[in-house]
Amino acid sequence: MIINVPENSDFSIHNIPFGIFSTADRSPRAGVAIGEHILDLAAVAELDVFDFNTAILEKEVLNDFIALGKSITNKVRRDIQHWLQDENSVLADKPELFVLQSEAQIHMPVYIGDYTDFYSSIEHATNVGIMFRGPENALMPNWKHIPVGYHGRASSIVASGLPMHRPKGQTLPKDAEAPIYGPCQRLDFELEMGFITGKNTNLGESIATEDAEDYIFGMVLLNDWSARDIQKWEYVPLGPFLAKNFASHISPWIVTLEALEPFRVSGPKQEPKVLPYLAYEGNKNYDIKLQVGIQPEGAEEQVVCNSNFKYMYWNMAQQLAHHTVNGCNINVGDLYGSGTISGKDENSYGSMLELAWMGTKPLKMKDGSERKFINDGDTVIIRGHSEKDGKRVGFGEVSAKVLPAK
Amino acid sequence: MIINVPENSDFSIHNIPFGIFSTADRSPRAGVAIGEHILDLAAVAELDVFDFNTAILEKEVLNDFIALGKSITNKVRRDIQHWLQDENSVLADKPELFVLQSEAQIHMPVYIGDYTDFYSSIEHATNVGIMFRGPENALMPNWKHIPVGYHGRASSIVASGLPMHRPKGQTLPKDAEAPIYGPCQRLDFELEMGFITGKNTNLGESIATEDAEDYIFGMVLLNDWSARDIQKWEYVPLGPFLAKNFASHISPWIVTLEALEPFRVSGPKQEPKVLPYLAYEGNKNYDIKLQVGIQPEGAEEQVVCNSNFKYMYWNMAQQLAHHTVNGCNINVGDLYGSGTISGKDENSYGSMLELAWMGTKPLKMKDGSERKFINDGDTVIIRGHSEKDGKRVGFGEVSAKVLPAK
Repeated sequence: MIINVPENSDFSIHNIPFGIFSTADRSPRAGVAIGEHILDLAAVAELDVFDFNTAILEKEVLNDFIALGKSITNKVRRDIQHWLQDENSVLADKPELFVLQSEAQIHMPVYIGDYTDFYSSIEHATNVGIMFRGPENALMPNWKHIPVGYHGRASSIVASGLPMHRPKGQTLPKDAEAPIYGPCQRLDFELEMGFITGKNTNLGESIATEDAEDYIFGMVLLNDWSARDIQKWEYVPLGPFLAKNFASHISPWIVTLEALEPFRVSGPKQEPKVLPYLAYEGNKNYDIKLQVGIQPEGAEEQVVCNSNFKYMYWNMAQQLAHHTVNGCNINVGDLYGSGTISGKDENSYGSMLELAWMGTKPLKMKDGSERKFINDGDTVIIRGHSEKDGKRVGFGEVSAKVLPAK
Repeated sequence: MIINVPENSDFSIHNIPFGIFSTADRSPRAGVAIGEHILDLAAVAELDVFDFNTAILEKEVLNDFIALGKSITNKVRRDIQHWLQDENSVLADKPELFVLQSEAQIHMPVYIGDYTDFYSSIEHATNVGIMFRGPENALMPNWKHIPVGYHGRASSIVASGLPMHRPKGQTLPKDAEAPIYGPCQRLDFELEMGFITGKNTNLGESIATEDAEDYIFGMVLLNDWSARDIQKWEYVPLGPFLAKNFASHISPWIVTLEALEPFRVSGPKQEPKVLPYLAYEGNKNYDIKLQVGIQPEGAEEQVVCNSNFKYMYWNMAQQLAHHTVNGCNINVGDLYGSGTISGKDENSYGSMLELAWMGTKPLKMKDGSERKFINDGDTVIIRGHSEKDGKRVGFGEVSAKVLPAK
């Protein structure tokens, strides 16, 4: 290996995720994460090793690079894997090609034109249903027929690390007749993953489940912050709005679908049978271990959730087929959230709403405090990685600190 | 006047709306509509009359022009008004600056980053509430406290004229136990207007009602097509999704807020009193006459609705203040729909759902046919204009033909 990669690094030679970074003397540009370093793709391009227009590697987002198509982007990834492992390759003895991640600023990897959030974890949908409607009607009648989803706000999606002020808004206090205005009292995280599309369609076109993976460039971790008290008051009948659009954070390195290939697993049996346009063949779920930690101000981080992306009832191919079955067009860089990912066990629930069960089972923190929801000063950290046969491919983390309301 | 403007033109000297057009020998560029012509702004720029970087007038969208700010864009509009009325101005004797609208292709005026749709007509919300929940609970408890809104799909918003295929999707037939897949059986228009923002905010910033108009560049007509049968099956609990995102059409000329200034009127009294962040002073509604026509294939157009934008319960300043009260950031070119605009009279309802009252009162067409919803081959045309003291300022039309499902 040309560069040292620590054991257990999410960014192993098997990964090679793409992102955008800058340093004091490098303007924002494309890079790949390898171990604790970033390989500067714009600098690699100067070695004249790529046969595409490499000016797109100096753009502030990866959209144009991704739009080259998988035949090119996959080749770049494989070439880099080979070069990094070959002591005599073009990358050898060129330390100026590498930057320490700790010395770089890591930006949003893509410009997101549209953001859709699904609701595809049956455990999460069931938990929320039990809390709001009771165990008899936990799942809505449409849930097992449709990968339920809704449109979110693209402008407020930001990269890991940017602190966020607690949102303010309208809520209806218990037993009150009129709403009040003030800081959200029930700020929650949502453990999600998101995929990013790498190909456009035209208005009127649909994507079949068997073609869907051609359209998926890669994945990120997603914290889809939610203001539960604002949500409760606003969401009937048109869905969540201000309860969600104040901020969502994503992990900044896009892990390609190809890097995740070794970690495919089968999904849950879907019963009743889905309509033909949602039927699929093969393994479309992915075994990605997920973890959520809360770090109170000045205290140690505490893991509050261990989950897995493999629990998803609806897979990404089904989500994309459903999204486009009516002719809705998609673009390179669009983001599609999984919805909160919960497992069967109580410690695998992907939100405070479920972990503390609507505030009835507060989580005990190591510093003696309790959490029903997220406090000011808390940093919420989501991590994710796959591991099999000694190969580890991970996402790093998406992390954000909550500041008091302005 | 340097160019002939027909009497009763929407695009009078008092209007000067901005758009993007192209012809066989002119690449897409900025223009203003005047009478039956377009004034080519990129060509005007060659006369060296503008003191900004005029390269932005040759872009395919107006976003960069709008982002110059109202001090510049309003001056451009006023200068053009003066020049067009001065027989000795820089525009005199230069027919090459003008193109007939009928000989041009008129494009989307802006790139829309995010699209939000409100639900701000009390008559529409009440009608829908009566149909789905009965007259006692017609309005949801939050409706008079919140300008209810939700996020829509930006990618599928297109300019007037582009024909559209009837969407396909999942619906649950009456008394059926399982959903079916097929062409939408209840395709509807929604008579809306939309405003376009002309200034960015940063994440965490809010806009007060008294500042909101500084952020609004102008307005367009909007047909927010809806598939009622798909909507009914999918929308609980997260709101409309595939029922809306297959297409929305807008009128291509953005009428500035300044052009609409003479047509301000007071809005309905808001009772109960709104929370302080939604309070406003002055006249924030606009008297804009709206009309919807249906033209069956090969038959005459028939007007089915006469309404007015002044009926809106929530005004645009309140919508923008609410949207940003939680710190949600906005961008130049974002679109905000009013929601369906209905008046009190039965012929002022802004959707087929209401006009034919859920199919119980089919509309009789001149050709003998009936309409409960929109048929294949129908063209739906929305028009809008303001008129006062002999001044007319209008939007032209947004028109689209429905083709059979693919």
